[in-house]
Order: sequence, then structure tokens, then C-alpha cells
Amino acid sequence: MKPSVKDLKEIFKPKLKPIIWNEEGKLTLLDQSALPFETAFVTLSSPDEVAAAIRTMKVRGAPAIGITASFAMVLAIKNESNLNQALVALSRAKPILDNARPTAVNLSWATSHMLSTARALVEKGEVRNTRELWSSLEAEAKRIYNEELEAELQMGLYGLDKISDGDTVLTQCNAGGLATGTGLGTALAPVKIAHALGIKVSVIAPETRPWLQGSRLTVYELMTDGVPVTLISDTAVGLVMYQRMVNSVMVGADRILQDGHVYNKIGTFKEAVIAHELGIPFYVLAPVTTFDLKSRAEDVIIEERDPNEVRTVRGVPIAPEGVNVYNPVFDVTPPKYVTALITEKGVIYPPFEKNVRKVIER
Amino acid sequence: MKPSVKDLKEIFKPKLKPIIWNEEGKLTLLDQSALPFETAFVTLSSPDEVAAAIRTMKVRGAPAIGITASFAMVLAIKNESNLNQALVALSRAKPILDNARPTAVNLSWATSHMLSTARALVEKGEVRNTRELWSSLEAEAKRIYNEELEAELQMGLYGLDKISDGDTVLTQCNAGGLATGTGLGTALAPVKIAHALGIKVSVIAPETRPWLQGSRLTVYELMTDGVPVTLISDTAVGLVMYQRMVNSVMVGADRILQDGHVYNKIGTFKEAVIAHELGIPFYVLAPVTTFDLKSRAEDVIIEERDPNEVRTVRGVPIAPEGVNVYNPVFDVTPPKYVTALITEKGVIYPPFEKNVRKVIER
Repeated sequence: MKPSVKDLKEIFKPKLKPIIWNEEGKLTLLDQSALPFETAFVTLSSPDEVAAAIRTMKVRGAPAIGITASFAMVLAIKNESNLNQALVALSRAKPILDNARPTAVNLSWATSHMLSTARALVEKGEVRNTRELWSSLEAEAKRIYNEELEAELQMGLYGLDKISDGDTVLTQCNAGGLATGTGLGTALAPVKIAHALGIKVSVIAPETRPWLQGSRLTVYELMTDGVPVTLISDTAVGLVMYQRMVNSVMVGADRILQDGHVYNKIGTFKEAVIAHELGIPFYVLAPVTTFDLKSRAEDVIIEERDPNEVRTVRGVPIAPEGVNVYNPVFDVTPPKYVTALITEKGVIYPPFEKNVRKVIER
Repeated sequence: MKPSVKDLKEIFKPKLKPIIWNEEGKLTLLDQSALPFETAFVTLSSPDEVAAAIRTMKVRGAPAIGITASFAMVLAIKNESNLNQALVALSRAKPILDNARPTAVNLSWATSHMLSTARALVEKGEVRNTRELWSSLEAEAKRIYNEELEAELQMGLYGLDKISDGDTVLTQCNAGGLATGTGLGTALAPVKIAHALGIKVSVIAPETRPWLQGSRLTVYELMTDGVPVTLISDTAVGLVMYQRMVNSVMVGADRILQDGHVYNKIGTFKEAVIAHELGIPFYVLAPVTTFDLKSRAEDVIIEERDPNEVRTVRGVPIAPEGVNVYNPVFDVTPPKYVTALITEKGVIYPPFEKNVRKVIER
């Protein structure tokens, strides 16, 4: 019988813990900037310290930064003795955190949400002192974390239906629990849940140049949770499908349009085309917040990054100095190559133009 | 009017010179092990020195090693005063050179050929002293070099028909003049010739992990010859085709079967599938010696190499220690994705099963 999300919370205990809230009022983060060469943790006790950790990429990934910032807002009122001072402290903490990663929308959403939650509690007289406010904000931050985890568990359960015993799944980049902060992840949720349920499953992870999220993060996180994983060069992506070493492809997404165009880490498109050509299912796993129901494919601009990311690997040059470089961060996968979109609200099959809204607006 | 191979020898003067024979009896090699970070040359005057240079990868690429070994056999008789001693010196030099890279068939072919040429000249009395033998062997080594260059020029001319003014060509790995020793190459021959003829053409070179032949060698060699080149990560191969930044794909080959299956550097297959899907022509350029008319696709074993090539880049780790790795060196591209095979004997179109022999056995 298929487990529920509630069952899974008991069964799935990830060894990977990117964000740990200490009940004594401190936040411990797995230092992602040191991964995978060192598993180090930093313990933080103020919004300033958390902002510094965000700035130096000790925590990364949009949902993970959002959760981290929520807990940082709890820390903001640690030393305040009255409610007015606590609200002032929260107002001061918000811009400090927001400026640590100005483009991260989850970050400013989380700080705004925590600040307005606190204000409402105080205004409505639902908290009488800073100790009660602390408890309420702590509960709210935990709720945000929990909501993220439950969405991933739900997505993972839908994805689980696409996995058979003995399967190998090809992924791309890191759509895992490091990026979301929960230890579970989006594209990696089904394999992690399968593994926890005793279903035999393994993953092939391409290194994902130029940033190497595959070799540095996906491999680390699967090894930590004991899921068998094999690292390949990005060049080997075609051969592993041709040799039928792969039963399905599961990737995350940065943005999904209403017609099913998927924007994700550079390299995703090639996996989709080859999978389509060879009849291997290609699944995209993402929460409903990833959907952009307004933009059209022709409006989306592919972001380019620093050419030195391509000219070097971990600071070591790999090409002649000054070589011309094209370094796009994302690519676009047209709907015809996508077997299904898997969200926490359900699985969306083609025609996407018709079915995306149906599921997303449920 | 289209130039001839003879015309091209006057027009095409590569700045890239991997193998230089000094008339005073020394061999100068571009040190490929230092590329692209340093352009250094080594000058060698004995077979022992050449063997050491082959062993330390100062020269690499099957045709380049063959040409180098031919000149090394000339050097072998430098200090010999009579013909018998010269033949003894050649017999001694052969195994020294052959052992420098035991799997390189071009190497042992070249040393055998030079030795038997010398024996025939002496036996038939066609040379009277070591000075005459030296001249004859020198001429033979030059002939081997020249034959390679002419084959590449001819291949390049056939490939030139596939290039229009303003085109951008996507390649893979390094099928260039560094590997062949001539400075021209196979897959890069058409663009270099086009450039020399004043046709506007540019190249997109994927870095080609794990060995980075693209970022280290292809980029270096095109920059040296002044051909505009853009480096991309292997992950960006799909997007550049999707964005129509590419007019054709031109790659080399390690082995081509009679039915048109192409074995080439890992990563070639993905380019072929995406090109096919998007209607971009995919050309394979290789001399007729690349064709294996006996084997069938199911018999060819894909060679795997040291997993540490994937775990590291230029000695720097990029993944957790001990991660499981799959590191295939080649992949296979089935004939349906190949637009044409371009050889020095002519262009072969599908159906390959019927047409390969027709051209190869011309």
C-alpha cells in the first residue's frame, strides 16, 4: 500500500540536514560553500551572522534561503525585553537579511512574512511579551519549513509512481535537499523516498559544468543518504541513455510556462531531446510556485554569467587566457519533450496548454 | 572558382606548427603537454629523446605520433658512418620508439615502414653511403607528412562545400592539426581552409570533459590560426543549436563502420541527436584509414578510462572522494543521425551500408 505524506514523515529521516534549528535559540547551517570536500557546520545566533552566511554562500538555493531567513527573524528578537523593541529589531533585521542576496525572492518574501506576522500578533494582542512572540515566530518559521517539506514529500509520492524496483534515474544539476533546505528536494525526492521504502533505485548524476552542482552537491547529498549514485561527465549523458543504463530522467525547474516550456539549468534540454528520441520518460519536478502563467517563451531572456566560470574550474584555468566564451545559465525545453510535470498538487500531462492551469489553480 | 589541393598548399599557411623538421637534422615539437597555458617547443636529436617526448605526451594524436616517429627514424642514423651500422641503429631505434606508446598503431606502422624502406634501399644498392640513406629516409618521412597533409586538404575541400559565408560550425573534442601533426586537422580542416580563403566562418567548441581537448587544444589551435572561436561548457551544446547559433556540426571519428556507425569522443552522440532533431546537418570528417569494414556495431566495446579523470580537473578534486564513476571514452552515433561522411576520397551519403564501400574502395 502506498504511504501517505504523514507516514513518510515517520519513514523518511534524511541524514542530510542543511538547516537545523536548535531549541535553545540558535541556527545551525551545513556550510555548503565547503562541500563536498568538507562537512562543516556553522552555528549562528543573530540576523547579522545569518546575513553573512547567506552572502558567503554557506546556504544557497531559493527555498533554503527562505527558510533560513525565517529562522533568522526569530533570532532578531532574542535580546529584546519588550514588544515594541522586538518590532524595531525585526524592522532592522529585514533589510540586513534582504541585502545579503538581493535577487532572492524567497528571502524577501520570508522576512516580510515574518515581520507582518509579528506586527499582527502584537497589534491584535495575541502575544503578551517577547517570550510569547518568540514562541509564535518560532512556530511560524517551523511551519514554513514544514510546508516546504510536505510539498516535497507530496511531489516525491507522485514521482514514486514513475519508479520501478531496480530503476536508474538520470538527473541534472542539484534539485535536491541542499537547495530546498529540507534534506529532501524536488527532482531527488522520488528516489530518496523510494530508497527509504526499500525500493532498489540508483541515480546517474552529470557533473553539470560550469558550476559542478552535480559532482559537488547531488553526489554528496545522495551519498550522505545512502542512495547509490554514479557520477558522469556531461559528455556521457547521451551514451548512458543509448546504452539503456537509465529508465527515466528527473530534473527540477527554475520556471515553467503555462504551455509547458521548462527553464532549468543549462544541459537539461539535451537530456530531454535524447530521452524523447530514445523513448525514455522525461519528468520535471517542481512546486506550483515555479509556474509563471503570464510569460510566453519568446519573452523569457536566458541569463548569461561571468565567462570566467567556463574558463576555469575551481580557480584553475582550463583554456587559453582571454578566449571568447558563451555562458548561458539556463536552457529551455519545449513541451514536446516533457512526459509530465510533477507538482505537489498533482501530475500534469500534455496537452499542457490545457492542463497546467487545471492542476495549478486547484 | 574552387581551389585545388595544390593551390591550397600555397594559400593555407598554418601558424600552428606542431612538428617542424630542421634541415640541419633536428626535430622540433610543439610541447602539447604544456598547452594551452604555455607555447613551448622542444628540439630533439635522437630516437631516445623523441621516445621520451612521446611518452610524456609532448606529442599526441595518432597521425602526429606516426609522423614524429618517421622523422625519429631519420635521426637514428645521424652518427652512423656505414650502411650496416645504420641498419643496426634503425633496428635498435624501432622498439625504443614503439614502446613509448604501445597502443598507437600509427607509431609502429611508421617505424616498420621506415626500417623496411631503409633495408630495401640498402639491399637494392640504391644508396651508396649513409649520407644518401639519410637523404632518402628524410624524403620518405617528408612524404608521409605530405600525404597526411594532402589527405586533410582534400577532406577540407570536400567539407568546404558544406560551409556558407557567415556560418558557425559546432565541433567536439580536438579533431585538429595538433592531433594530426600537420597544423590542419580533419573536422577543423574546412573552417581553416574557409578562413584562409577569406570566407567568414566561426567555430563553437565545447570544452569536452573529462580531458578538455576542446578548451585546451581546439580553442588554442583556432586562436593561433586566427579563426574566431567561442568556448562553451558541454552542457550548453543543446542551447546553441536550439538558438540557431550553429549552421552545421563537424566532428572527427576514431572508427567508422561499414553501415555508418560512428565511434568518436564521448559527447558526439548528443550533438548528433540534437542536430538531427533540429534539422542541422551533422558531418563526420575522417580519412579512409578510419573505416573498419569488418566489425559490426554489436562487437565494438566502448573503452573506459580511469575514474579519477572525472573526479578531478587538472588535478583539482570536483567531487566527494571515492564517488562511483562511469568514464566511457567514446560514444557511438548510429547512421540515422549522420548527414554525410567526408573523406579524402569523397563525400559519402546514406544509405551508408551501400555507399561506404563504393567510396572507400575507389
